[in-house]
Amino acid sequence: MSLKIAVIGSGAAGMTAASTARREDPGAEIVLFTEDEHIAYSPCVIPWVLEGRTGWESIVMHDPEYYRQERGIDVRTLTKVTSVDLGSCVLTAGGEDFTFDRLVLATGGQVFIPPIPGTGLPGVHVVRTINDGKAIEEGMASVDDVAIIGAGVIGLEMALAMKEAGKGVTVIEMMDQVVPRILDPDLAADLRAYLEGRGVRFVMGAPIQSVDGERSVESVTVSGERIPCGMAVFSTGVRANLELPSQMGLDIGTLGAVRVSPGMRPYRNGRLVPNVFVCGDVVQCESAVLPGPTMSQLGSSAVRQGRVAGINAAGGNAMHEGVTSPWVSVIGELQVAGTGISSSLAGWYGIEVASGVAHGLTRARYYPGGTPMTVKVLAERSTGRLVGAQMISGEDATGRINWLSAAVLEGVGAKDFLSRYENAYCPPTSMVRDVAFTAVERLVSEL
Amino acid sequence: MSLKIAVIGSGAAGMTAASTARREDPGAEIVLFTEDEHIAYSPCVIPWVLEGRTGWESIVMHDPEYYRQERGIDVRTLTKVTSVDLGSCVLTAGGEDFTFDRLVLATGGQVFIPPIPGTGLPGVHVVRTINDGKAIEEGMASVDDVAIIGAGVIGLEMALAMKEAGKGVTVIEMMDQVVPRILDPDLAADLRAYLEGRGVRFVMGAPIQSVDGERSVESVTVSGERIPCGMAVFSTGVRANLELPSQMGLDIGTLGAVRVSPGMRPYRNGRLVPNVFVCGDVVQCESAVLPGPTMSQLGSSAVRQGRVAGINAAGGNAMHEGVTSPWVSVIGELQVAGTGISSSLAGWYGIEVASGVAHGLTRARYYPGGTPMTVKVLAERSTGRLVGAQMISGEDATGRINWLSAAVLEGVGAKDFLSRYENAYCPPTSMVRDVAFTAVERLVSEL
Repeated sequence: MSLKIAVIGSGAAGMTAASTARREDPGAEIVLFTEDEHIAYSPCVIPWVLEGRTGWESIVMHDPEYYRQERGIDVRTLTKVTSVDLGSCVLTAGGEDFTFDRLVLATGGQVFIPPIPGTGLPGVHVVRTINDGKAIEEGMASVDDVAIIGAGVIGLEMALAMKEAGKGVTVIEMMDQVVPRILDPDLAADLRAYLEGRGVRFVMGAPIQSVDGERSVESVTVSGERIPCGMAVFSTGVRANLELPSQMGLDIGTLGAVRVSPGMRPYRNGRLVPNVFVCGDVVQCESAVLPGPTMSQLGSSAVRQGRVAGINAAGGNAMHEGVTSPWVSVIGELQVAGTGISSSLAGWYGIEVASGVAHGLTRARYYPGGTPMTVKVLAERSTGRLVGAQMISGEDATGRINWLSAAVLEGVGAKDFLSRYENAYCPPTSMVRDVAFTAVERLVSEL
Repeated sequence: MSLKIAVIGSGAAGMTAASTARREDPGAEIVLFTEDEHIAYSPCVIPWVLEGRTGWESIVMHDPEYYRQERGIDVRTLTKVTSVDLGSCVLTAGGEDFTFDRLVLATGGQVFIPPIPGTGLPGVHVVRTINDGKAIEEGMASVDDVAIIGAGVIGLEMALAMKEAGKGVTVIEMMDQVVPRILDPDLAADLRAYLEGRGVRFVMGAPIQSVDGERSVESVTVSGERIPCGMAVFSTGVRANLELPSQMGLDIGTLGAVRVSPGMRPYRNGRLVPNVFVCGDVVQCESAVLPGPTMSQLGSSAVRQGRVAGINAAGGNAMHEGVTSPWVSVIGELQVAGTGISSSLAGWYGIEVASGVAHGLTRARYYPGGTPMTVKVLAERSTGRLVGAQMISGEDATGRINWLSAAVLEGVGAKDFLSRYENAYCPPTSMVRDVAFTAVERLVSEL
């Protein structure tokens, strides 16, 4: 008898879990259920599609037919799973019952829209699916001014995409800095100044009060000020989709997402649930930096978790260890990246940090084409251990943040980083001593 | 009484040692002796100056006057140190005696020219100093064809620079692959094919027999074939300058360079020499990958070592730990990078390795402008521990090789890399799952 594996969700986590399970068990019957119309695409690229860098067709890598033919995965789109009975291992999808041996739950998250008036008006959008993106594209045509609610990386990427499309753009952020929580205020100020230079307007430190309009969005109101706009895009953070997990009685963690073991197995009343694996935006992770839960709602995290869920659903034994969650965002000419914890998260967790900042270049000083690069590093003051890093540069931030992320993951002391870590050097791609070392050296002098 | 610190050598190691000692001890008297005319520049950039990307003036960052004024370092150019008396702490430079409390020896290396006929002819060059580069530039004007002897990274960078300048270029390499020792044959074949596509000719697996000519270079002879050329550039590897170390009686290691402790202190008859510190191309390092000596003649290594020597010369206690020696070279549109040990070095050290290779892209598949990226990873077969990585891509290799270098340095197992390491993701800068993970996954399947 072949193993019957059901996967719920077609985001990066669900698709990866299904493909990995197939690779691990060529004989398994694998069925994937999704409410979505499109599968196997990256929602992260939506801002650039709106900018015209690439098209909707090209961002969908495969259709259901490809999965059926090439991977033997039965993908059922536009099919909502309404209930899961863990006792009998039966799920109900589109009115039909389906029996499974193993279940992968990857129900993802949805954009949190604050409970204010007017969010149901036409012209209110989120940035989550291709259809969300197409709706924005359609709406843009007749709109001169756009309000972006939330100055996280997606909000800022969207702000610039809208600016590139010739719109007037106002970003509204409840906190007093852009990219709150994960970027330190000094780097955030640099980033905001860059965007202001590109013509983006900011209203900071004030929550949105209402979306206003008769039949569609005409303005948004913040701090009593009415900001005229024909479109309001909410990029206010993602919350886990808990409908099915709650119905199944799975334990929800303190951060409002499904609590899982390192094998991506959920709990029910504190005990591991057999044959079920949960991955992607719907789970809360364990931090590699500080003991305790953290959210890691990144596309790259979804793929890592989906791989573990897929291996384990097929009977293997893979582990998903604690995360540092390195991230990178491209905002115009800038690449902004971070890993581990920021100063504000450190405060939240109650640890005291020391930091070091250095400014340098991405290439040797005398080699043309280099861009400024700012690196900030953070260490726990009591131990000197690196706990986070952030950078803004014009190029090559991704590999560099992975590098610093490895040091944070390994719990390397700031002094040890100086004596043990090395950087590759070639004049067209780096300074002889990478800016990160100067930042760590300054950090050490603060310890 | 202020400390008198003498530094011999004005390369990256010597200059860094002097500047670091100054920062550590503002009161020290610091004198730096060098045979060179120019100081504080990067010889690594010479190929690009010859290509016209930048000028000789711009690559010299500071002159002796700057060091005197700004850093209180007395730099004596064109001044050869002919002897050092460790007993009396006196060195003789330019005929004058100079007493020191601490000595930093950074005498560097020189290009090894094989003992064949004709290497003294005008038209024979090496790529080491600005004056070497200027001599090549001057000679190029009247020359149509150039032979590059040695297909290491400097040889290949020079080959392309000469090609860009419109010359016919033949690269002659004794081994049967380009970038021998540090790059695996498969990646080396890709690199060579790229250069052949750019019009560079290769003569492989044959040592040069002679440089021929009446009054200047007219040809070189390899395997009995005469290859007409007006210039022969030797990029045949760097050997430590042992003249002074030998005269001082310092112990020379098995790799033909000065043996040093982690504090960059040399030995004499097996015992540490007080008050002397050695750094840069003249030393042999300890490998972080396998117990034993290794050479790390990189600009970035020189700076790291110079920092340690400078701190310790000023009375501090810094350490230079084992090295993985990450390197990167830019050859036309390609970035080639590596860290740790290659398959051929593994054979040399007598360990058996497994490897994994993956081909992918530097950006998301659907985002324009990405380039192919090949990543190869190596693990010790008996333990599964990562021991090396190599890559070829069109962008962003530097940070990524630093990242993999950290994993090698930390002795991470290939399986652990999959479960613990993470990559940052944004469509314009990476695939959602970095190519490195696919390479490691293939490696794991070989273990």
